[in-house]
Amino acid sequence: MFNIALFGVGRIGQVHAVNIASHPETCVYSVIDPYVEGAQKLATKYNAVIQTVDEALTDPNVHAVCICSATDTHANLIELAAQHGKVIFCEKPIDLDLSRVRDCLAAVNKYQVPMVVGFNRRFDPQFRAVKDQLNAGVVGQAESLMIISRDPTPPPAEYSKVSGGMFRDMTIHDLDMARFIIGENPVSITAQGSCMVDPAIGEAGDIDTSVLVMNFPSGAMATIHNSRRSGYGYDQRIELHGSKGLLKASNMKENLVEHWGETGCVAAKPQHFFLERYQAAYVAEWQHFVDVLNGQTPNCTGADGEYALMLADAAIESMKTGKTVML
Amino acid sequence: MFNIALFGVGRIGQVHAVNIASHPETCVYSVIDPYVEGAQKLATKYNAVIQTVDEALTDPNVHAVCICSATDTHANLIELAAQHGKVIFCEKPIDLDLSRVRDCLAAVNKYQVPMVVGFNRRFDPQFRAVKDQLNAGVVGQAESLMIISRDPTPPPAEYSKVSGGMFRDMTIHDLDMARFIIGENPVSITAQGSCMVDPAIGEAGDIDTSVLVMNFPSGAMATIHNSRRSGYGYDQRIELHGSKGLLKASNMKENLVEHWGETGCVAAKPQHFFLERYQAAYVAEWQHFVDVLNGQTPNCTGADGEYALMLADAAIESMKTGKTVML
Amino acid sequence: MFNIALFGVGRIGQVHAVNIASHPETCVYSVIDPYVEGAQKLATKYNAVIQTVDEALTDPNVHAVCICSATDTHANLIELAAQHGKVIFCEKPIDLDLSRVRDCLAAVNKYQVPMVVGFNRRFDPQFRAVKDQLNAGVVGQAESLMIISRDPTPPPAEYSKVSGGMFRDMTIHDLDMARFIIGENPVSITAQGSCMVDPAIGEAGDIDTSVLVMNFPSGAMATIHNSRRSGYGYDQRIELHGSKGLLKASNMKENLVEHWGETGCVAAKPQHFFLERYQAAYVAEWQHFVDVLNGQTPNCTGADGEYALMLADAAIESMKTGKTVML
Amino acid sequence: MFNIALFGVGRIGQVHAVNIASHPETCVYSVIDPYVEGAQKLATKYNAVIQTVDEALTDPNVHAVCICSATDTHANLIELAAQHGKVIFCEKPIDLDLSRVRDCLAAVNKYQVPMVVGFNRRFDPQFRAVKDQLNAGVVGQAESLMIISRDPTPPPAEYSKVSGGMFRDMTIHDLDMARFIIGENPVSITAQGSCMVDPAIGEAGDIDTSVLVMNFPSGAMATIHNSRRSGYGYDQRIELHGSKGLLKASNMKENLVEHWGETGCVAAKPQHFFLERYQAAYVAEWQHFVDVLNGQTPNCTGADGEYALMLADAAIESMKTGKTVML
Repeated sequence: MFNIALFGVGRIGQVHAVNIASHPETCVYSVIDPYVEGAQKLATKYNAVIQTVDEALTDPNVHAVCICSATDTHANLIELAAQHGKVIFCEKPIDLDLSRVRDCLAAVNKYQVPMVVGFNRRFDPQFRAVKDQLNAGVVGQAESLMIISRDPTPPPAEYSKVSGGMFRDMTIHDLDMARFIIGENPVSITAQGSCMVDPAIGEAGDIDTSVLVMNFPSGAMATIHNSRRSGYGYDQRIELHGSKGLLKASNMKENLVEHWGETGCVAAKPQHFFLERYQAAYVAEWQHFVDVLNGQTPNCTGADGEYALMLADAAIESMKTGKTVML
Repeated sequence: MFNIALFGVGRIGQVHAVNIASHPETCVYSVIDPYVEGAQKLATKYNAVIQTVDEALTDPNVHAVCICSATDTHANLIELAAQHGKVIFCEKPIDLDLSRVRDCLAAVNKYQVPMVVGFNRRFDPQFRAVKDQLNAGVVGQAESLMIISRDPTPPPAEYSKVSGGMFRDMTIHDLDMARFIIGENPVSITAQGSCMVDPAIGEAGDIDTSVLVMNFPSGAMATIHNSRRSGYGYDQRIELHGSKGLLKASNMKENLVEHWGETGCVAAKPQHFFLERYQAAYVAEWQHFVDVLNGQTPNCTGADGEYALMLADAAIESMKTGKTVML
Repeated sequence: MFNIALFGVGRIGQVHAVNIASHPETCVYSVIDPYVEGAQKLATKYNAVIQTVDEALTDPNVHAVCICSATDTHANLIELAAQHGKVIFCEKPIDLDLSRVRDCLAAVNKYQVPMVVGFNRRFDPQFRAVKDQLNAGVVGQAESLMIISRDPTPPPAEYSKVSGGMFRDMTIHDLDMARFIIGENPVSITAQGSCMVDPAIGEAGDIDTSVLVMNFPSGAMATIHNSRRSGYGYDQRIELHGSKGLLKASNMKENLVEHWGETGCVAAKPQHFFLERYQAAYVAEWQHFVDVLNGQTPNCTGADGEYALMLADAAIESMKTGKTVML
Repeated sequence: MFNIALFGVGRIGQVHAVNIASHPETCVYSVIDPYVEGAQKLATKYNAVIQTVDEALTDPNVHAVCICSATDTHANLIELAAQHGKVIFCEKPIDLDLSRVRDCLAAVNKYQVPMVVGFNRRFDPQFRAVKDQLNAGVVGQAESLMIISRDPTPPPAEYSKVSGGMFRDMTIHDLDMARFIIGENPVSITAQGSCMVDPAIGEAGDIDTSVLVMNFPSGAMATIHNSRRSGYGYDQRIELHGSKGLLKASNMKENLVEHWGETGCVAAKPQHFFLERYQAAYVAEWQHFVDVLNGQTPNCTGADGEYALMLADAAIESMKTGKTVML
């Protein structure tokens, strides 16, 4: 049984808490959060202790940390955990600043601690099936990838500042997915964005609608289609066109019941948001982390986090300059 | 070019007129209908002459007749046409009375005139694809067939008397389809019906909702699910379960556009009724009749019409007695 | 925290063990099974003790029993548990013999112990959505229900004897579902069956393919379409036609990825069998049992189990006599 | 009845011939093609005369011309027809050279002759339904349009020269569709292309795979995804994301039959190519031309043809320079 110290008891921390507790090889050993009431509640539920950061990192019973705290604490906690030899699971992003990410990863490397970064979608069974079928040669060589990713409703405009903007916060998942599916690093990126959803987002200097085009060494191309507001739930789809055909991963709907009536054939909407849509992905992601605890090599690393952030920065540059950015 | 004498200028007569005129080997030569105004309109449109029954049948330029007049005129017209050596296309049914049908077919046989009976669904490309795939062995041996057939809206209650009731008017298509798909004649039939849609239909002695079960010599079973009112257009589906899998023919929708919005994912309804749904079937049916004019053997004959009526009568008996009728 | 004594560590016992352990209000307290090795394995996994039947039923720490042992032990265990005041969850069926079921239920009644019978499909979110939408008036009055239920592959022929035959073992779920959806008790049942899948099943006196028709007081009808072998996974579908439209619950597929290629558009098969298809149903079913432990009235009772068995017996009689059985 | 002079008896000329002959208000009056045998065959079929270009244009019985001849004859024939006051239907493109197009349109303008240019997809009932629903406000303001357009198999490499390259030949339809759906003229275009399908196409200086991004004054964006080879039939889809939801026009498949078997659920491929996919569009297009003959204003004009070619040229420039082209 691996004892996990859980940093952060917000929405995503609670998701991981359930999976940690359900997994036969892990338990929520301790909870760390300045928000005392929330920490207490979670600790009670999982029979865990409440610790300070120092207590958790110096506690020899703690085997690993699960970092779900505020974004601006990630890099520090990673460095501290690495220093104390704890295996690290960290929610993305490592940091919003690329040079800070690089310093942090240098520290991790120095202490040789395994780290998994939480790009949850890599573990989604639907997208994994696309990747597996591509690898199995079902559609031949990848030629054209289309990633459609739309949130159900936009965040408050002020969130743009905390989050680093849409490309660093939201598109970063899709940038990583493009690399993951194609299996290459892009040679160039071209980004276009506009503010169509909420003028306040534009006033805050951010965008809410965008199209990105990536070119890969093999000649393959990928497009990413983002919006902060779908109007119909969480739109998470992938289409991969290859030399022998197409692979399509459709949305998961709230249920499979259709109503046929006077106004048409009505099916349920896509599942509401990431907590529903990626439930199975979070379970598979945690399973991978347990495999890493058992000695397996991480397949979603700090370097992947760094790469995705670098692409997000390049996309911002492309959008600002109106030019393709060569990588 | 084959000259066709068209009997009846109602809804179905007009459907055939278009197909006769569009086909490179046939033309609407003459129109016969006591409703003068309608006959005149069609004659003008297709550059055809107006004839009486006698004129049409004795005109040596008429190669074939297309009988789309009122049901109670079919048998007489068939006999007259046979007598005059005209090749016959007749809309179903030949007659609502089984013994009258048998007499009529005896006349046709005597004069050795080819006749095609208009079970339009046999020519539908969707159902034909099911039949073809079954014949090609795609699902192995047929085990269980499900025919779902629902009209969009019920006819007026008084129509029940003219039409011979739901089994003879509507279900008869499905009874023929079951024989066509399975490729065997059933050994028994069990019918259940109720009046759920319009009490006036019940008062007129008819039903509007029914389930039929047919058993075939091979052990295969078929069910027919009918309603006089769907609430969502014309519901015309077939599912064939065989020893190696399932074949499903779904409804054709008004269009292929989906709207995803707050209330769900809305697709178009099934096409409204038989004129839309079976447009391609009517074209294929007429092509078959032209093939017959060119010497091919009819594959949907008077005997098929007789058999389907016999099954409808057996279904009525089963419903009334509450027993399975052995055939 | 409610302590559960788990009787039976087979396939279905293991499903319940996971759900008992995952639920925040229940734990696997003890395991009872004559198969020592299996019991030991499960006990170790869940930190549970191994008990005999007597020990479990007399242990004041045991709040409830979860009966997943062999079918022929159910009735006895239910009676013993009722006698000792334990709240009862029992997998279906209570017994294969209707009079034995009635005696058993009398005992339960006498001791006033709440009991839930495991008709898992009643708790399936898909079918529940159909029921909820019907209750909400989305399709008006229920007119015609179609239940399609096909196992992926047939059981060994010898299983027919242990199981009580297809109607008592497999169709019983669909009989219960028809009552559950329509919300009425049927007035008659007509059954047809044949042996199309495996001749050995026929030699053992059972069938493997069947169609049932049920009539309800409101005039509504239901058909049940069963096969012991689908050829394409577990086929579990419901269609409810009402006065205002249709509700369709489709199969859950292994994944949502489609491959479009030369031979067509290929989607994944339906999920393999009940463990996959009804995973969410088992979780919801256990949640209901916890609600019962907390005082709620059971909504899937011994009487429901008795009723479904009575219908299965009537179906057998109908098939043997070739007549509709009035209830 | 309008007499039509048909120029060109190739594949597309034959499509129009059927529609001209089927329409109650038009007939194939004469056929003009240097390929004598083909012209003779069509003339016989439709009871038409064979004419030279001069004969057709000076024949007072000819009301309109349908230009389906080789691309490099279009502009000359248009000018001649305009000079002789014939109403003009011309297959796209008017010419591959933008200045030649402009000269030609000036001539048409001078003679005030109505002209319809054959962007067949504008008349497709599926895409028209998207446009109609957008206009009806179903999805609010247009934000993001995705046009997926893939041919089943690539043309021979040498075709690149005759056709003006992929952007001018194939993408031009999608460029027009983007303007048609969004209802605005784009402010910029960014194009990326590569040669993934056939190296010979690359050697001929053309591409076979591309992604285009267009920006519109309202902030809306459109992407066009092209490939010369799908591997699964003709891929013709549109997705329009608006402020209130999404509209999706899916592919039309060869049939609606699904086969569920061991390897999955197999549906038919998309229809093979434009002759099948746009059959209904060609009929609707011809209906529009008849409406123009009856005095209606053309809704797909020479100016639309010019605009689309200008966009194709801009896309070529963008691809070559690696920069967004401002319009």
